Amino acid sequence: MNYRMIKNILGWLLCFDGAFMLVPLVTGLVCHEKEALWFIPVIALCALLGLLMILVRKPRNKQLYAKEGFVIVGLSWIVMSLFGALPLWLSGTIPEYVDALFETVSGFTTTGATILSDVEHLPECMIMWRSFTHWVGGMGVLVFVMAFIPLSGGSNMHIMKAESTGPSVSKLVPGVKTTALALYSIYFVMTALEFIMLLFGGMTVLQALNTSFATAGTGGFGFFNDSMASFSSYTRWVITAFMLLFSISFSSYYLFLKKKFKAALTYEIRIFIMVVAASTLVITLNLHGYYPTFRDQLEQASFTVASIISTTGFSTCDFDKWPEISKTILVALMFIGATAGSTGGGMKVSRVIILIKGMKKELEMMVHPNQIKKVTVDGNQVSHEVVRSVNVYVVCFVLVFALSMLIVSIDGHEFETNFTAVAATINNIGPGLHEVGPSANFSFFSIPSKLVLIFDMIAGRLELYPMLLLLSPSTWRK
Amino acid sequence: MNYRMIKNILGWLLCFDGAFMLVPLVTGLVCHEKEALWFIPVIALCALLGLLMILVRKPRNKQLYAKEGFVIVGLSWIVMSLFGALPLWLSGTIPEYVDALFETVSGFTTTGATILSDVEHLPECMIMWRSFTHWVGGMGVLVFVMAFIPLSGGSNMHIMKAESTGPSVSKLVPGVKTTALALYSIYFVMTALEFIMLLFGGMTVLQALNTSFATAGTGGFGFFNDSMASFSSYTRWVITAFMLLFSISFSSYYLFLKKKFKAALTYEIRIFIMVVAASTLVITLNLHGYYPTFRDQLEQASFTVASIISTTGFSTCDFDKWPEISKTILVALMFIGATAGSTGGGMKVSRVIILIKGMKKELEMMVHPNQIKKVTVDGNQVSHEVVRSVNVYVVCFVLVFALSMLIVSIDGHEFETNFTAVAATINNIGPGLHEVGPSANFSFFSIPSKLVLIFDMIAGRLELYPMLLLLSPSTWRK
Repeated sequence: MNYRMIKNILGWLLCFDGAFMLVPLVTGLVCHEKEALWFIPVIALCALLGLLMILVRKPRNKQLYAKEGFVIVGLSWIVMSLFGALPLWLSGTIPEYVDALFETVSGFTTTGATILSDVEHLPECMIMWRSFTHWVGGMGVLVFVMAFIPLSGGSNMHIMKAESTGPSVSKLVPGVKTTALALYSIYFVMTALEFIMLLFGGMTVLQALNTSFATAGTGGFGFFNDSMASFSSYTRWVITAFMLLFSISFSSYYLFLKKKFKAALTYEIRIFIMVVAASTLVITLNLHGYYPTFRDQLEQASFTVASIISTTGFSTCDFDKWPEISKTILVALMFIGATAGSTGGGMKVSRVIILIKGMKKELEMMVHPNQIKKVTVDGNQVSHEVVRSVNVYVVCFVLVFALSMLIVSIDGHEFETNFTAVAATINNIGPGLHEVGPSANFSFFSIPSKLVLIFDMIAGRLELYPMLLLLSPSTWRK
Repeated sequence: MNYRMIKNILGWLLCFDGAFMLVPLVTGLVCHEKEALWFIPVIALCALLGLLMILVRKPRNKQLYAKEGFVIVGLSWIVMSLFGALPLWLSGTIPEYVDALFETVSGFTTTGATILSDVEHLPECMIMWRSFTHWVGGMGVLVFVMAFIPLSGGSNMHIMKAESTGPSVSKLVPGVKTTALALYSIYFVMTALEFIMLLFGGMTVLQALNTSFATAGTGGFGFFNDSMASFSSYTRWVITAFMLLFSISFSSYYLFLKKKFKAALTYEIRIFIMVVAASTLVITLNLHGYYPTFRDQLEQASFTVASIISTTGFSTCDFDKWPEISKTILVALMFIGATAGSTGGGMKVSRVIILIKGMKKELEMMVHPNQIKKVTVDGNQVSHEVVRSVNVYVVCFVLVFALSMLIVSIDGHEFETNFTAVAATINNIGPGLHEVGPSANFSFFSIPSKLVLIFDMIAGRLELYPMLLLLSPSTWRK
């Protein structure tokens, strides 16, 4: 294990973590909030500690292997959250450190689950910090950091693989840095576009910024206690559209800009669109009688479907009160999630596709053992390795899920609460159902349960392996 | 597809189905019940139709392949249940045919989920038929039928594979028939042993017979509305012991009788014992305050743990009222299930072991890509094929589970009810929690939901593949 290199990169990460806090600091200064001053010592601490870690005992060997890639990514997200929670805690905005950590992890992992019952009275700088963590966490921090650190060839690919979403990662253009730059540009432009469209809808600058950051990262932290319920129909539709847009792989936008339209509209995206359309249709019809007009039903259904499948977690209504079939569809969407390579969470549509196609293939091979069949997506063979890794992913997911539920259930809450609390955190959605429904929050859980849910949020965002490997003794063995 | 051979075997099966009904018929005649007379026309129908199917258009080619093995097993269990439900329906014991079918499928698949709210006023012959279906279904019908039909070499192995439980099937002794004979002898002797021990506890002959049949098949149909709550402590402990004994692979008993003690106590069985001990311990402690003495806590905990992990489903108390952590442990045990090669359901301990070891191996291979690692159980390498088939099994399980929940949720019952109803049927347990808890029943579900749960019970008993393959177009393609 290249410990010096790990220390070095974590140092860089801390510096960036401090730099990110300039955004809420400036917001707070503009708004004349005294809580904002707490960001100053934390930024100083991050910078100091970060520089020390970079400069003392520099690494001689800059080579990183897959193992270090996973460890760095896992540790980075933990360290980033531990320090990111400090301003919320020190300023007294959130009195308990574990709660502040929960909130920060929920931010960086773009979960959007909150322990706060009243967000309307938060200082603007803290609201901005929550939203901005979504934006930072959405695209992944390390890939961003990597753009500034010189690494030997191949090393940054290991980190990119460990931090990106979806069953397989490919570089769009030669070189990880160029790829990262292209993706970040798209991310930036789309966020700006949403910001402008929200301003047209009558939001204030801060509201539009917060909403754009939270939508872009598919996070879901709001600034009103009723989330997005009080905004106009226009604003809601803009948010619905952007939640869906940010669920789509950024590589596709890149291909689209390169006029490779056919390659851009992958099988995964077509299936994603079909799932969204079908779920919206069924829920719209199912909501008959719950809202005055068909238009309202459609609006609530499409907003909620977009919010859940994109794993954003905004709400315009208390969907915990919807009929059971709609709720079950939403729970199913929680697990499916967005498409690979987007900022959304969940298992990802491509994994579900590979799972179902792989299952079909296995069943066919049982009845025709002598035929050779391959799983294909978009006309390309899916390698045996990817199919296997997806199967292993599901197994890991089920085991982590079951173990989490077991621990959380010690608190004694109801089955539906426990199940959807774990589902909403591990899939990075935000709200669940029942006691963790859209009108409730996560504050009532015990500290052990909160720690489990914190683990689940990071594990879910990093697609399990980095966090599982941090816990595996074989990682630390020589 | 060798249709003639399929027809031929289904004919044999119908004859056996009719023969099995002689047991409740005799019971009814002894007890002077007029309902028993309804068995006579059904037996005649089974025999007539069965003989016709055997004798008309005899198969020229007796070879069966894997494909036919799955199809025969899937169809057999459906046909057997369709006819087995007739006496319950015709006699008016259960007025609706779908309900009678649910009850019969629940019997043959050893689930033990009932749609009856009052079983105490059932005629003795019908109680006997319900219990006897457990005993027949427990070991598998087709392996039994196979002993009587001459098949060309290898053909019956395909059927045995499709009907037996667990990730892999091995013949104990050369020849499927000899193996089947050895296993059935052990089954018979153990059932007789329980019968005698229950008689000592003061049960009537019929009660002891019914209980023994239901325990041996790990079924769970009782004859009192409070299941086993009204029996003495001695009787409950006997049942607890036998529920656990019938959860253990019959091959192990065979090896034990051959004095191969070390081979008999497999890793799977050791883990099974540890899981039972640990769960019982935790639940016993967790029940503090729920029962007057520690002894009561221990008795209730061990009975319920044995009942759930063996997938029998007897109850001595309403465990739906237990604290949440105990309930969550029970739900986890529902999925783990008994050991492979026993009459119990669930995923089987060996599958869980292979899943966890396989996951560990994959994680280790991520950090040490150049090492060659193999999954081993009991010092033997688990073949790559078995590991893959277990992974695929979990994926199929998750998909069938999710789809079932989606359909059942249309009825509008609560999440916990839907979740545990599907879990209790697909794992062949019987009772779930909440509205399908041990003091409730399944009668309130709509007909589509009942059909889904019927499918799940058969799919669970046959470990998914035969039922999935019946639905797969590629099975029926030339």
